[in-house]
Amino acid sequence: MTITVGVIGVGAIGQDHVHRLSHVLSGARVGAVTDVDLDRARVVADGLAGPVLHRSGAELIADDRVDAVVVTSWGPTHEEYVLACVAAGKQVFCEKPLATTREAAERIVEAETATGRRLVMVGFMRRFDAQYRAMKEVVTGGEIGLPLLMHAAHRNPSVPDFFTSDMIVTDTAVHDIDVARWLFDEEIAAVTVLRPRTSRKAKAGFDDPLLVLLETEGGVLVDVEASVNAGFGYDIRGEVVGEDGTVELSESAGTVVKRAGTHAGRVPAHWRERFGPAFDAELQAWVDAVAAGGTTGPSAWDGYAATVVCETGLAALRSGAREPVVLPDRPDLYKGPA
Amino acid sequence: MTITVGVIGVGAIGQDHVHRLSHVLSGARVGAVTDVDLDRARVVADGLAGPVLHRSGAELIADDRVDAVVVTSWGPTHEEYVLACVAAGKQVFCEKPLATTREAAERIVEAETATGRRLVMVGFMRRFDAQYRAMKEVVTGGEIGLPLLMHAAHRNPSVPDFFTSDMIVTDTAVHDIDVARWLFDEEIAAVTVLRPRTSRKAKAGFDDPLLVLLETEGGVLVDVEASVNAGFGYDIRGEVVGEDGTVELSESAGTVVKRAGTHAGRVPAHWRERFGPAFDAELQAWVDAVAAGGTTGPSAWDGYAATVVCETGLAALRSGAREPVVLPDRPDLYKGPA
Amino acid sequence: MTITVGVIGVGAIGQDHVHRLSHVLSGARVGAVTDVDLDRARVVADGLAGPVLHRSGAELIADDRVDAVVVTSWGPTHEEYVLACVAAGKQVFCEKPLATTREAAERIVEAETATGRRLVMVGFMRRFDAQYRAMKEVVTGGEIGLPLLMHAAHRNPSVPDFFTSDMIVTDTAVHDIDVARWLFDEEIAAVTVLRPRTSRKAKAGFDDPLLVLLETEGGVLVDVEASVNAGFGYDIRGEVVGEDGTVELSESAGTVVKRAGTHAGRVPAHWRERFGPAFDAELQAWVDAVAAGGTTGPSAWDGYAATVVCETGLAALRSGAREPVVLPDRPDLYKGPA
Amino acid sequence: MTITVGVIGVGAIGQDHVHRLSHVLSGARVGAVTDVDLDRARVVADGLAGPVLHRSGAELIADDRVDAVVVTSWGPTHEEYVLACVAAGKQVFCEKPLATTREAAERIVEAETATGRRLVMVGFMRRFDAQYRAMKEVVTGGEIGLPLLMHAAHRNPSVPDFFTSDMIVTDTAVHDIDVARWLFDEEIAAVTVLRPRTSRKAKAGFDDPLLVLLETEGGVLVDVEASVNAGFGYDIRGEVVGEDGTVELSESAGTVVKRAGTHAGRVPAHWRERFGPAFDAELQAWVDAVAAGGTTGPSAWDGYAATVVCETGLAALRSGAREPVVLPDRPDLYKGPA
Repeated sequence: MTITVGVIGVGAIGQDHVHRLSHVLSGARVGAVTDVDLDRARVVADGLAGPVLHRSGAELIADDRVDAVVVTSWGPTHEEYVLACVAAGKQVFCEKPLATTREAAERIVEAETATGRRLVMVGFMRRFDAQYRAMKEVVTGGEIGLPLLMHAAHRNPSVPDFFTSDMIVTDTAVHDIDVARWLFDEEIAAVTVLRPRTSRKAKAGFDDPLLVLLETEGGVLVDVEASVNAGFGYDIRGEVVGEDGTVELSESAGTVVKRAGTHAGRVPAHWRERFGPAFDAELQAWVDAVAAGGTTGPSAWDGYAATVVCETGLAALRSGAREPVVLPDRPDLYKGPA
Repeated sequence: MTITVGVIGVGAIGQDHVHRLSHVLSGARVGAVTDVDLDRARVVADGLAGPVLHRSGAELIADDRVDAVVVTSWGPTHEEYVLACVAAGKQVFCEKPLATTREAAERIVEAETATGRRLVMVGFMRRFDAQYRAMKEVVTGGEIGLPLLMHAAHRNPSVPDFFTSDMIVTDTAVHDIDVARWLFDEEIAAVTVLRPRTSRKAKAGFDDPLLVLLETEGGVLVDVEASVNAGFGYDIRGEVVGEDGTVELSESAGTVVKRAGTHAGRVPAHWRERFGPAFDAELQAWVDAVAAGGTTGPSAWDGYAATVVCETGLAALRSGAREPVVLPDRPDLYKGPA
Repeated sequence: MTITVGVIGVGAIGQDHVHRLSHVLSGARVGAVTDVDLDRARVVADGLAGPVLHRSGAELIADDRVDAVVVTSWGPTHEEYVLACVAAGKQVFCEKPLATTREAAERIVEAETATGRRLVMVGFMRRFDAQYRAMKEVVTGGEIGLPLLMHAAHRNPSVPDFFTSDMIVTDTAVHDIDVARWLFDEEIAAVTVLRPRTSRKAKAGFDDPLLVLLETEGGVLVDVEASVNAGFGYDIRGEVVGEDGTVELSESAGTVVKRAGTHAGRVPAHWRERFGPAFDAELQAWVDAVAAGGTTGPSAWDGYAATVVCETGLAALRSGAREPVVLPDRPDLYKGPA
Repeated sequence: MTITVGVIGVGAIGQDHVHRLSHVLSGARVGAVTDVDLDRARVVADGLAGPVLHRSGAELIADDRVDAVVVTSWGPTHEEYVLACVAAGKQVFCEKPLATTREAAERIVEAETATGRRLVMVGFMRRFDAQYRAMKEVVTGGEIGLPLLMHAAHRNPSVPDFFTSDMIVTDTAVHDIDVARWLFDEEIAAVTVLRPRTSRKAKAGFDDPLLVLLETEGGVLVDVEASVNAGFGYDIRGEVVGEDGTVELSESAGTVVKRAGTHAGRVPAHWRERFGPAFDAELQAWVDAVAAGGTTGPSAWDGYAATVVCETGLAALRSGAREPVVLPDRPDLYKGPA
C-alpha cells in the first residue's frame, strides 16, 4: 500500500523530505504540494510525477486524495496547519518546532487530546539516529547504572544570516533538550544558560557559544555546549555518565587517513551528512506507522515540552539565573514508554 | 514510476531482497517470486501484496509483467537464469557469484556482449558501502599517492555446516578480490594462498584462516586474512598503503562504553549489521538505473574476473605456489571507469 | 653532580618519591628522611643506602648535608616545613596542596617574595604529563584559535575512608583548577558548584559527583565533572574548545583487544598508572633545576591561587551560588610565562 | 650503588645512551668513552663530568674502573668488543645487531656459553615498550586464544644516504623478527620476501616497500610491511590474531585536534619520539640488573637467532622463494621464559 502525502512548505528541508518520499523511502508518494511561494511549489511539483499544486495549506489538507501531511513551512505557521490536520483527522508529520510559543503548542496538545488519539509526530530526528539509539539502549539496559550527568555539544560550522541569537536555544540546543527528555524519560525541571567568552566569528549582538544547563526531574544534570560558528565542521557530541560507567557517541566513522604527520578522520561538514540516515529512518517510520493506521515517534507532548523548555531557556538567557520549568501534568494520551 | 521485479530464489538473502524491495527502497515492487522450494516461495508471496507465484525461473523471466529480475538462487543455477534474462532483454541483478565456473561466467559475458548493452549487475555490495566508497575516494583522489600495498582481513564469527573449505576463497576472499580490482582499477595478475596455523574451531579438513596474496597487474600487493571461525564478531578490515600515506577503514562506530576497566566499541555481530545499509544502497542504485533504462555497478565482467581469480586461488591453495591469473582482453562494453 | 634530598613524610606518595629519587631518576639521592611516625621512617630508611633518620622536619631541614627538601607530609603541616626551607634558603618541592588555608599560602608567598628568589615548587604533576603538554602546545600555538570553553572530567574509581566531601573540590578538582590557570595563563575569576543526582556509591553526606564551573578572567568557561566513586577506572578527560577547533586528551593508549563482540582499550586503574611518568618527569625537572641552582614548574603563587580558588569553591558548594575569586596582584617574582 | 659504564662508539645512538646514563637513568655514570673518531669521543667526554677518554675499545674494556660496557659502535665491530667483554667477564649491553654475520654471532654465543653465565644483553628495545609489553601480556594471558597470525608494519619516514637495500631486512624488519620470536616464544622456521610495487621515493636499485613473511615453528604466520620511505611519519603497527580474538597496538595517543574538517592525532615523526621511553626502560633494566650482579632482556641467543633469520631473509629476497631457517639447538644457558 502506498500512502499519498501532501507537503506544506518546500524550502530546503521541505525539498529534502519531498525527495525522500519520492526517491528514497518505501510506501509513499508525494501527491500534493504547496508553499507560501507558489512559484517555488510549482518548480518542485514539476520535478515529480504530477502532484496537485495547492494554493494554500488549508486547501491541501482538505484534499481527499491526501492521506497524510508533512508540515515543513515556516515555524510560526506550524500551529495552524497541525491544528487543521488534527481537525481533519489526518496524520501529520511536523518538523520541529511543533509551535513557536507555549500557548500555541498547548492548543495543539489540547486539540489532539480531545480527539482521543495521536495524530501528530514531531521531527526530532536524533531519536532515529543509530548512535543515539545505541546510547539509549545502553542507558536503559542498565549497563552504566543510574544516569547522573550528561555532557553534550552541538557545534554548527556556521549559520545563515536570518539566524538570531535566540535560535541558539530554540533551534540548536532544542535537539539536546529533546534528547535529554527521551534518554532519561523524564521532564526537564530547570534551565540555566551561561555565556562563555564570545567567539570572534559571532555576529554583533550574539552570545555564541552558550553553555546550557538542564536539570531533569530526577536530578540528571546535562551541560550542552551550543555553538553556531564552530567553523571546523558539524560536530555533535554526547556522553552520559552513570553510576557504573559512561556511554558516549563515537567520532563519526568512515576512514582514517595517515598523511603528513597525522592520522585523521572526517568531521561531518553539514547536518545532512551527519543526520541524513536518521531523517530517512524517521520519515520511513512515520510512513510505515501511517500505513498501519497510526503514528509513532516524538509526540505533540514532546513538541510542547521542548517548546516550554526553550522558552524557559530564553528567560534564563536573559536573567542569567536558574529558571524552573513549569509544565502541567502529562495527559494520559502521552503516557507510556518513549 | 515503480518497476515490477521478479525474484528467483527466496532463501535468506532472497528474502532480504524481497523485504528491501517491498518495505525499504523506493520505486520498486515485487511482482513475482519463485524458488526451487515452491512452498517456501508461497510463504514469501503470501506475505506480500499479491505477487505472482511462478513454478520456475524460466516462467518468471518470461512473464511480461516482470520488468526486471533479481537472481538469489543457489550459485550453480545463476548462469541459467542470467542467460535467460539476457536473452529476454531484461535487466537482471545477480547475487554473487555470477557463475560458479570460469566457462559459465564466460558464456554470460559473451551473451551480454553480443547484445551490445549491459543487462547484468553483480551483487558486490562493498562497492556501495560508505566506508569503502570513502576509501576509494582517497585512493583515486591522490591523497596518499600511488598505491603500493593493501592489507585486508575478512573475519566471520562462524559459518554454517554447508560451508566448505574452498568457500573461504570463493565466498569470503571473493569480496576482497572484487574490492582490490575496483579500488585500484586493475586486474589481479597472480594469487598465492598461505596456510597459517589452523584454528581449533575449524572443522576437520579445513584450512582456516588463510592468507590470500593478490598481485595486481600494476604491482599492488594485497594480503587478505580470510577467517571463518573468528568467533568474536564480523570484522572487516582494510588499509591501503600509498607512496605518501595510508587510508584504512575505521572501526565501526556507534557508541563507546566505559565500564569495568575498559572503553569499548562494538564489533558487528553479523554481516547484516555491517553491510545492511550497503545492500540497501546497492539495490536502490539498481532500481533507479533500471527505471532509467539501464544498469549500474559491478558488471558481468567484474563477476567473470572474480570467478577466474577465485578459480586461480583454489589452484594456488592446492599447489602452495604462486599461480598467475589468465584473463582474455576486456571487451569494449566493459571499458571505462569503474 | 648528585644532589642530596631530604624527604619529610613517607606515607604512600612520600614513598613513591623516595623510590623515584633512589631508583628511577638521575642526579639525586635520598640522604635524609623523617616522618610523624618514626617507625615508618625507619623502615623506609632501612631500604636505602644509609640515609640519616631525623626526628623532625625542622631537624632535617637544618641538616647541612641536605641540599634540598621534598615535603610529602600531611597537608596541614606543609606550611611549617615550606616556611622553614625558605628561611633556610633551601629549595623545596612541596606536594599539593601548598597549604590548606589561604592565609597559610599567603604567608609562604610573602616569605618567598621577601627572599627575592623562587625556592618553592608545588607538585601539580599534570603540567609534566605528555598529553597535557601537547594540549597546551596546541592551545598556545594558536591552532584552534582563542579558547572559549573547556570540558573536563576527573573520575576516581573510589576513595579511601578518610576522604571527606570537601576533598572533591580541594583534592580532586584542584588539579583541573591548576590546569585551567596553566593552559590559559589566566587567573580564575569565579566558581560555581552544581550538584547532579548523587551516586548510590557515595558515602552518606557526600555530594558526588559535582560539576564545578570555573570562569577565567578572560571569560573561558571550564566545566569540571569531579567524581570520586566512578568505579570503572581512573578516567581523566579534557577538551578545550577554541574559536577555530578543539583539542582533547586521547583515550589512554596501549592495545586494542577484540573479543566477544567488542574492541576495547584499557582505562587506567589508578592514578599511578595514568600519571606515573608525569610524576617522574616532574621530579626530574626539579632535581635538574636544583642542580642548576634554581627551581622550575608550578610556583608558590600557583599553589596559593589554587588554594584560594578551592576555598572559593567550597563557599560556592555551600551557597549554591556563583562566588567571585578574590586575589591580590601577582608579585613580580611570579610574572612571566608559565 | 652507582655503576660506572664505558661507552664504545658515540655516534647518534651512542650519544643518546650517554645522555640517558648521565641525565635520565638512576644508578649509573659514564666513566669512560671511546670512538673510532677520537675527536668526537673527546667532545662527548668534555660534556660530562670527567670520564676517561680511551684510545680504543680494547683499552676501555680493560680499564678496571669500568664496571660494564655499552657497545654502540659500527655493526661490524660489535663482535670484537662483545667478545672482549665476555673474555674480561664484564657485563655488556650491545646495540643491535649483535653481529653482522651468523658466524660472528655464533662465536659470541659459544664464548658466553663457555663462561656458564649470561654477560650479554642485546638492544631490542621493543621488548621494553609499554604497548608491546601489554600486547605480550594479552597473548600469553590467553585472552585471545592460541595465536594464528600477526600483521605488522614498520614505516620509516625516510632513511639516510648510507642505508642500503638489504638494511630493510637487517635494520628494519629485524625488529619485527625479534618481536615475533619474543611474543610467541618460538623460533622463526622460514622466511619469504615479496616485492610490491616500488615507491617512487625509493633510491635507484631499492626494493621498497617489502612484505616479509615469517613462519614460526608452531605455524604462526607473520606478515611484515617494511617501508623506509613512508614520508608521513614513523609508523609502527602490529596486530596478533588468535583463535578467539585479536590484539593490536593503539595509534599513539596524545591529543586529538579537531580542525578544518578532520579530527586528527599525531603520527610520531621519528623513532626517538615513538621509542624514547622504551630505550630508557631498556637501559635502566640493564643498569639495575648489572648492579644486582647479572643481566636481563634479549640474550646473545636472541641476537644470534635474529642475525640468522636476517641472513635467511636476504637469501629469500634474492631467491624470491620461501627459505627455511636453520638453527642449532638452543644451549641450556638460554632456555627458560623470555
